[in-house]
Amino acid sequence: VSKFAPLDPAWEAKVRDSFDRQGFMRYLEARLTRLEPGLAAIELPFRTELAQQHGYFHAGATSAIADTAGGYAGFSLFPACSSVLTVEFKINLVAPAMGERLHAVAEVIKPGRTLVICDLKVWAVSAVREVLCATGLQTLICLKDKPDA
Amino acid sequence: VSKFAPLDPAWEAKVRDSFDRQGFMRYLEARLTRLEPGLAAIELPFRTELAQQHGYFHAGATSAIADTAGGYAGFSLFPACSSVLTVEFKINLVAPAMGERLHAVAEVIKPGRTLVICDLKVWAVSAVREVLCATGLQTLICLKDKPDA
Amino acid sequence: VSKFAPLDPAWEAKVRDSFDRQGFMRYLEARLTRLEPGLAAIELPFRTELAQQHGYFHAGATSAIADTAGGYAGFSLFPACSSVLTVEFKINLVAPAMGERLHAVAEVIKPGRTLVICDLKVWAVSAVREVLCATGLQTLICLKDKPDA
Amino acid sequence: VSKFAPLDPAWEAKVRDSFDRQGFMRYLEARLTRLEPGLAAIELPFRTELAQQHGYFHAGATSAIADTAGGYAGFSLFPACSSVLTVEFKINLVAPAMGERLHAVAEVIKPGRTLVICDLKVWAVSAVREVLCATGLQTLICLKDKPDA
Repeated sequence: VSKFAPLDPAWEAKVRDSFDRQGFMRYLEARLTRLEPGLAAIELPFRTELAQQHGYFHAGATSAIADTAGGYAGFSLFPACSSVLTVEFKINLVAPAMGERLHAVAEVIKPGRTLVICDLKVWAVSAVREVLCATGLQTLICLKDKPDA
Repeated sequence: VSKFAPLDPAWEAKVRDSFDRQGFMRYLEARLTRLEPGLAAIELPFRTELAQQHGYFHAGATSAIADTAGGYAGFSLFPACSSVLTVEFKINLVAPAMGERLHAVAEVIKPGRTLVICDLKVWAVSAVREVLCATGLQTLICLKDKPDA
Repeated sequence: VSKFAPLDPAWEAKVRDSFDRQGFMRYLEARLTRLEPGLAAIELPFRTELAQQHGYFHAGATSAIADTAGGYAGFSLFPACSSVLTVEFKINLVAPAMGERLHAVAEVIKPGRTLVICDLKVWAVSAVREVLCATGLQTLICLKDKPDA
Repeated sequence: VSKFAPLDPAWEAKVRDSFDRQGFMRYLEARLTRLEPGLAAIELPFRTELAQQHGYFHAGATSAIADTAGGYAGFSLFPACSSVLTVEFKINLVAPAMGERLHAVAEVIKPGRTLVICDLKVWAVSAVREVLCATGLQTLICLKDKPDA
């Protein structure tokens, strides 16, 4: 059971539709794998197109899915006819992002009417292990009367 | 004239070679447009593959080039036989990243033997204007005796 | 000449009055030494009461004046009848904060109607030198119709 | 049971002794209320000397105890003859810090040989409630062969 009550009855369709309109997530081949009020998870399978110079996931790819998961964790709680923007985020890359896929999970820590704060975590997952590779904090803003679509 | 003296005479070739090995930068079609000791700039032309749900550059793309520019600004000052890792970065998305291209510029603020701090700025550039769309701070670590290639 | 035009004609008195009501700044013996639209500077003389375990300025004291300078840099641009709150800040402690006094300077990078972003810098100053000891980024929010006093 | 094994058998005395040498914590009348390997908690009773302009705890006081708790959470895991420095921290002030006291709890998320990452949380506590007022992330560095005392 989620600890948050969404304000928009259409929250789930709205979030999935918004995610699907993100050309960047499609280009990265990222998928929204879990969605609850105040929580979103994204998976990103490894490809050399996503690598940095040592062959691991690029911190930019790690950050991109962490930021996006956070945005949708927050957006799920927003009222109808509003949009979400990332104000800022900070991310610590705590271990090499090496594995078959990344798994980003974002959760709302503090829902506010204007600002929402999310916790961001990314794991590097392989057949044998799952390692926390990034942890972050994000501030979102709710733009009222600006429909997302 | 740069205010920093590189420790590795081969710094420029080393940085360019490392950038070229980043599958992610190639996939994004990002180009290293300027390189000096302690400074790197990256350009990213707009494509719908880089967009978020409103059609602007995705914050993940903005962050990816900012982080990469910072990494190479720092790496340019590192001794031979060392690698660079991003410890963490924080980025404020201060205006919609809309335009024909993004232009990220990173500069070393504080060079240290182990840690290096960079200032990150990203502009959204179109024919008629240039708008600061992101500003950030980044911490890098120098891994000695770990050649990048 | 400042690059920002204050919205409240009484901006200077308003900021100085607010600073004077901060028990914490008084307790630290911090002084507001410079004030312009979008810019504030604070000085903090050294005392052992402000030290960490090695005898330098405590990062908490460094952060406190950096955050406060940023808050008033932003507040100077706010309309009448509004208050300022720090949403978040990030600070890198780039050199030991040792010296006779700290000198924090905050400047608005991006003024917005709701959110304002500030650059924060702190120097450790002694008779013989001035060393950048901290650099940060801060997000402020303007609370309308909530007078500060 | 702690999930971390301290490297220095004298970790507890070492941390308490270091905390006691912090003039700033004493001046704020902050107390170290809980200490485990990888975890530290600090309490700060309210006084008007710690207030900002609206009479709540100043964000600088909130940050100071959060940063200090994080520093000692990390230091508890360091080897003998080493010191701790805060590289950087980021903190979101998510609710007004009003109450009888603040309660900061820091936990190591990622222990490394050189860098340690901590989660920081601060609650504002009164007789009737306990509200999360700040959440942060911190990067520490372990300085080997530099005894703290």
